[in-house]
Amino acid sequence: MSDTSALLPIVRTVADLRAVVRGWRRTGERIGLVPTMGALHEGHLSLVRMGKAQAERVVATVFVNPTQFAPTEDLDRYPRQEARDAELLQGAGCDLLFAPAPAEVYPDRFSTSVTVSGVSEDLEGRFRPQMFGGVATVVSKLLNMVQPDCALFGEKDWQQLMVIKRMARDLDLPVEILAGPTVRDDDGLAMSSRNAYLTTEQRAIAARLNVILADAAIRFRAGAALAEVEAEARDELLAAGFEKVDYVAVRMAESLAPMAENDAGILADLHNNARILAAAWLGGTRLIDNMAV
Amino acid sequence: MSDTSALLPIVRTVADLRAVVRGWRRTGERIGLVPTMGALHEGHLSLVRMGKAQAERVVATVFVNPTQFAPTEDLDRYPRQEARDAELLQGAGCDLLFAPAPAEVYPDRFSTSVTVSGVSEDLEGRFRPQMFGGVATVVSKLLNMVQPDCALFGEKDWQQLMVIKRMARDLDLPVEILAGPTVRDDDGLAMSSRNAYLTTEQRAIAARLNVILADAAIRFRAGAALAEVEAEARDELLAAGFEKVDYVAVRMAESLAPMAENDAGILADLHNNARILAAAWLGGTRLIDNMAV
Repeated sequence: MSDTSALLPIVRTVADLRAVVRGWRRTGERIGLVPTMGALHEGHLSLVRMGKAQAERVVATVFVNPTQFAPTEDLDRYPRQEARDAELLQGAGCDLLFAPAPAEVYPDRFSTSVTVSGVSEDLEGRFRPQMFGGVATVVSKLLNMVQPDCALFGEKDWQQLMVIKRMARDLDLPVEILAGPTVRDDDGLAMSSRNAYLTTEQRAIAARLNVILADAAIRFRAGAALAEVEAEARDELLAAGFEKVDYVAVRMAESLAPMAENDAGILADLHNNARILAAAWLGGTRLIDNMAV
Repeated sequence: MSDTSALLPIVRTVADLRAVVRGWRRTGERIGLVPTMGALHEGHLSLVRMGKAQAERVVATVFVNPTQFAPTEDLDRYPRQEARDAELLQGAGCDLLFAPAPAEVYPDRFSTSVTVSGVSEDLEGRFRPQMFGGVATVVSKLLNMVQPDCALFGEKDWQQLMVIKRMARDLDLPVEILAGPTVRDDDGLAMSSRNAYLTTEQRAIAARLNVILADAAIRFRAGAALAEVEAEARDELLAAGFEKVDYVAVRMAESLAPMAENDAGILADLHNNARILAAAWLGGTRLIDNMAV
């Protein structure tokens, strides 16, 4: 179907990547970056389209970053489908795919890490203690490799987005971090590469996650006590068929700190600044979701 | 004496810094960066001149970085003399001084750190455990603020130079890290802002440091055993009047790892790759020096 001349260019080395980007830069074009771990879905593609609205050129990266997986996690079975990913990226308007081998990203004697304290420590950071160190380090590397004007991340990984925003600000990275809204299937399930692991039966249960969170957010907004809202949502997830709930939490959206009550016992800055987040298991698959309260 | 119109421009904010740099960049000029903690001496100025040989524009920064000092160290008494520094920088050909307040560098809720393992852990890292984390973080920030083509550091702080080179490579910072040779007084004492702390008597003892290291390097090259050379140099420093010796060590120059012996008991790659390094105290002043073996 597709014309060979229209295939998305793929580069494997930082040198080749920079050569292409330098050419664009020389003609004054703005550049957007969409870092991914591949196994692309509409969530990723929406970020590419958003990038094209911000910049003349969009680079996507596909790199399943080994340092953000714990030894017990799904690094080996994480879906890899580069040819399909390249075709989807091109359809969304992407200009270049950077798909390096691990040795290109982590050369011999690699010994530097970027760490973000505070915002990275609870929630995902508590259950996946390796992850955010790995994410902050690899994202700072990708930003330095490409030197884009903007980089786009999905709100689906809300805490990751907050960690990356904090890191970019703290390290004075000359880039704008932009967030794309979570893209959902018709039943509201947040799109995720890990949804591919689900059986038909699990898939039906998975769709309850977003509904239960939305209901909890409504109850909280209506005045229900924080601890009760969290406990009820947890019970509802278990009743729906999730086997384990790592957390359900209403937090300050940016810092992910616990909500602070003011003297009148009213939660501060509720309207703009609260987020409900959850992680729960179906079989060996861990799903996360979040939304504004 | 000096014409006001020729005063070195000083900027205090990242925004102002970037505005100046952007103007240069637009006309295709290359930019060099010389990060300092001020109290400038000929060592710093030689880096500015080196930078001017590499790039049309040189930015110097003067920032006494609080995060690389332990609470017991000399942050408060570290010499500060901005007007004199600006004059010296201008005389050396510097184009811009960036001298931010701590709050510009470390805004509210700052929470990111850059860490380099291995090369940073022994020697200075053992005796000043805070230092290299602070250095790697602030240097990565300064590099991101200025985005220079090259950045220049003195060999006097050899281990710091190796940490920064490793960090720049590992994080794919698009900058060339260049090293300037240690600049010495007539008697061989390595220039250091901390030499200003020395009394006349201490100053005379201080000059023995480089002589003792050079002699030790000669004995080692002539075949003396590593442990003996190190122990003798330590004894000589104490005999010369140093009150405490943190370390005298012959190490692999780049990794700062202990020298490896091959099967024949001969130290590997000696000619190009060994460095002798020392840190010793005179009163409350800690001096360091190093040289190729």
